[in-house]
Amino acid sequence: MQVGVQEDAAGPDAEGDAFNGACRGRTVFDHITSRWGVLVLAALRLGPLRFSALHSRITGMSEKMLSQTLRTLVRDGLIARTVDASVPPKVSYALTSLGRGASQPLQGLLDWISAHSAEVEQAQRNHDNVRAAEA
Amino acid sequence: MQVGVQEDAAGPDAEGDAFNGACRGRTVFDHITSRWGVLVLAALRLGPLRFSALHSRITGMSEKMLSQTLRTLVRDGLIARTVDASVPPKVSYALTSLGRGASQPLQGLLDWISAHSAEVEQAQRNHDNVRAAEA
Repeated sequence: MQVGVQEDAAGPDAEGDAFNGACRGRTVFDHITSRWGVLVLAALRLGPLRFSALHSRITGMSEKMLSQTLRTLVRDGLIARTVDASVPPKVSYALTSLGRGASQPLQGLLDWISAHSAEVEQAQRNHDNVRAAEA
Repeated sequence: MQVGVQEDAAGPDAEGDAFNGACRGRTVFDHITSRWGVLVLAALRLGPLRFSALHSRITGMSEKMLSQTLRTLVRDGLIARTVDASVPPKVSYALTSLGRGASQPLQGLLDWISAHSAEVEQAQRNHDNVRAAEA
């Protein structure tokens, strides 16, 4: 499977295959770049957290959505769910080594956006002003 | 504006704000991680391309969707549209320096996925097998 347009791709079909619905790379990409997946992975870069701590850390995310996101990322092997055999049992979540690996380039992308989104916003305004002047 | 959960964030509200709908960082993130935005940015890393060449390079993308994606990324200042004053006029698209900057961490993420998606798929199978055994 290929993600993105490969310089050494076999041809247009190989490139196009990268993003068909059956491609596992696309599924991984969608999970880790989803609105909530990004936030959960980023939050856990700081260390393991219990559900309630994750929930209070990520404002605006419902408990249901947090549960679904964690379930997806646990199934992907990116996050580990640990149940401590106490009474009541304590459940915590942590990045696996695979998840930590994924979170690094993801953080690189987030850092780029933090550093450059003002430039993008300025470009959008310039573009709209030119369009308005032409109209 | 902040993207992601920041270690030095002012608190939960600052983190949560990162992903509200009005956040420009989220818009940029959505554009460059969109299914087609990714492919267009990746295709142009190899050099400028005319519309028809882009269209044939990215299999499965309709001309309408390519036009829309290019319009969005041109407005964002990530791609430049150049009209060559020939008859008929030739239109080509290239990454701007801003777009090239965005494409680098994006490529890092794609490379990670290419290298590790088999591990994620294996984790999913293991997870489903455990679930099936428990049922």
